[in-house]
Amino acid sequence: MNDRPIVNIGICGLGTVGQGVWKHITRSRAKLESRLGARLVLKRASVRDLKKKRNVRVAASRLTTDTMEVATDPAIQIVCELIGGTTLAKDVTLAALKLGKTVISANKALICEHGPEIFAAARKHGGHYFFEASVAGGIPIIKALREGLVANRFDHIYGILNGTCNYILTRMEREGLSYQEILVEAKALGYAEADESLDVDGWDTAHKASIITYLAHGTWVPTKSMVVEGITMLTQADLKFASDNGYAIKLLADITRDLKTDELSVLVAPILLPLTKALANVNDVYNGVSVTGDVVGETVYIGRGAGQDATASAVISDIVDAVALLLRGNAPLPEPIEHDCPRRPLESIRGRYYLRMDVKDEPGVLAKIAGVAAKVGVSIASVGQSPTTLSKAASLILITHESNEKAIRSALTQLRRTSAVLGEPLLLRIASFAD
Amino acid sequence: MNDRPIVNIGICGLGTVGQGVWKHITRSRAKLESRLGARLVLKRASVRDLKKKRNVRVAASRLTTDTMEVATDPAIQIVCELIGGTTLAKDVTLAALKLGKTVISANKALICEHGPEIFAAARKHGGHYFFEASVAGGIPIIKALREGLVANRFDHIYGILNGTCNYILTRMEREGLSYQEILVEAKALGYAEADESLDVDGWDTAHKASIITYLAHGTWVPTKSMVVEGITMLTQADLKFASDNGYAIKLLADITRDLKTDELSVLVAPILLPLTKALANVNDVYNGVSVTGDVVGETVYIGRGAGQDATASAVISDIVDAVALLLRGNAPLPEPIEHDCPRRPLESIRGRYYLRMDVKDEPGVLAKIAGVAAKVGVSIASVGQSPTTLSKAASLILITHESNEKAIRSALTQLRRTSAVLGEPLLLRIASFAD
Repeated sequence: MNDRPIVNIGICGLGTVGQGVWKHITRSRAKLESRLGARLVLKRASVRDLKKKRNVRVAASRLTTDTMEVATDPAIQIVCELIGGTTLAKDVTLAALKLGKTVISANKALICEHGPEIFAAARKHGGHYFFEASVAGGIPIIKALREGLVANRFDHIYGILNGTCNYILTRMEREGLSYQEILVEAKALGYAEADESLDVDGWDTAHKASIITYLAHGTWVPTKSMVVEGITMLTQADLKFASDNGYAIKLLADITRDLKTDELSVLVAPILLPLTKALANVNDVYNGVSVTGDVVGETVYIGRGAGQDATASAVISDIVDAVALLLRGNAPLPEPIEHDCPRRPLESIRGRYYLRMDVKDEPGVLAKIAGVAAKVGVSIASVGQSPTTLSKAASLILITHESNEKAIRSALTQLRRTSAVLGEPLLLRIASFAD
Repeated sequence: MNDRPIVNIGICGLGTVGQGVWKHITRSRAKLESRLGARLVLKRASVRDLKKKRNVRVAASRLTTDTMEVATDPAIQIVCELIGGTTLAKDVTLAALKLGKTVISANKALICEHGPEIFAAARKHGGHYFFEASVAGGIPIIKALREGLVANRFDHIYGILNGTCNYILTRMEREGLSYQEILVEAKALGYAEADESLDVDGWDTAHKASIITYLAHGTWVPTKSMVVEGITMLTQADLKFASDNGYAIKLLADITRDLKTDELSVLVAPILLPLTKALANVNDVYNGVSVTGDVVGETVYIGRGAGQDATASAVISDIVDAVALLLRGNAPLPEPIEHDCPRRPLESIRGRYYLRMDVKDEPGVLAKIAGVAAKVGVSIASVGQSPTTLSKAASLILITHESNEKAIRSALTQLRRTSAVLGEPLLLRIASFAD
């Protein structure tokens, strides 16, 4: 047993996730070491405050406040960057990679913003960069995309990637309460951050969509060139329409590649999903990803997207892969081919749409609205009314026939200018599945 | 490009799956070779009939009727065993492994019956054995269990692993037709084999359960020491009760480990699953696996479990892993620790049960049945009636309070001996989830 090679691991950031990794490696050490034929040593960890009480026991001699010291320690082969953010995290990541080390990360924002630079540094210096925990927490979706489904090109990927939004939408649907009411409770319960905007406005989902897009299509799509919409505009009227008509509303990343034209589109928005689809039944803080490949068809992955333990599960699987790779020699892992595939033009992003808007309650309004839509080529399939608190107003819910992003946005622009339309219309998309 | 190392692949058995592998490797060759930095050559394939028309174009010089010739060809590094069965398939597998080659298989029956011998041969001679396609077709569940969830011990694994059974149950539920009626149609459509017994009696699911058990728990449980029950006894009465009470009935593999006593149980049977669970909504020929780990919580995997393309997707992912491993050097992959964990005794396999039986329609029958059950410690939670075609008879559906396998089997034995009970009672289990 004692002639097993030693692998030294450094933990940058012994916060929630770092402590989870420390705890579960300590607990499963015998099993992991036996499988790997190596000894795993948690060599050092960096913290902000040496005196803070923690739930894991770590000898004081292993702790430091100098994160860079951990990242560059010559004895350490595997560096776990679990500090978050994009400044110090970037510095320690690049420093470790330049020394040829393997870096493991849960930092979706960093990868999304600086992925190409980080990956290039790993390649150049013979190190590796693993990031299973950055998307969908404990679900091994990155491994599935990179390895398990390697035979496929990916027509459609739909992902519920933000637990906070899914929790809020699930409770709004179940309890009939408003977005604001649930948000307040979610904050009190710790399911939403004090500043919730990164989650509820869709940016966290967009970061993860960017990473999935790179893995599936070898192309970096920055969040600023995606459509990104959040869930704050949703009301009970929308959820009621959805459930009455066999849908659930989920905040989805929609990564679609037209395999004929090879064009790609990435969108983050609340989308109406048929209740018959597995993703529509992914509730509470769970994440889910539906991946349709041209060989395998649709596959779906569901699990906890965040939290100490689920994230630690993903980080540890990366550590095990990294150790196996270190022991076997250092040839690079297969990476997606980098080729910047063209973006799908808005006209070819087709689908049906849901429009909810308050309108003046007067004769001829519906004709006017249908006329505005028709002028830009959007045809209305059905119209319903929902209650509104405004006086002398009606709230309309319109479902379109198949249309496209360009036409529907023109329609939205026109509707905003129409005097009979009060306030801001809400646009939702209705998911389409190829089968 | 031309200085890339060449990897020669042999296909034993150019049937449905073999042709799928040939087709998709040919089609995706550029992408796969670029990712791997190697040239993939489909060197040879064995067939039963050289003259048979096939959907893939293979040069006659690459075909042979001698499967062993492909398996032992010195130029071939990776052998795909896609002939099925447990005789010739075993011989070619062991012959290739003894030459240090890597063998890739979709053959669940072979692994289930001869897994330990095959794995030992791979280890002894420095080769490898991959089998992602053997369980749940295109779903990368083996990779998830071996690698993605490596930090976990597995409390519960539930799997819908047989597409034929799931197709039959889904149609029975949707269309209200009998098992026999759907079976006849499923055969006509090619969704069921001419001899359907391997599927509908649960043995195919049991083979796959054995493989999952080995991966998750490092223990080989032969199918003969599992409880294995099929779907042929199910009627519309059962499906109606289930849907009226918020359940779906699925043929499940249930692999449960009591993490306190470390005891393991493996069972294959139709089980009532709450409709709120993702697995309950896995329909038609789809497979689904719910894996609960002690670190990650519940994760769920859904996809096509069989068919040319889904299976080829899994075989090709194994080929890519095998090539990466060959190029990186030949150290062994992490394997589960082999330790034969104890079986859970029947008394500690606890749960609620569903019993349907025809009884004589006479006073005092229910009291008699409840008395029989109570004597062996099974307590009845609810009783309902369902229609029966027998005259002077009633059909009862009983739900028990929590009980255990030993008690419920005693109850079943006693009920069979009770003169008021007509024919064979049907016993189903009701799934329990830890959360």
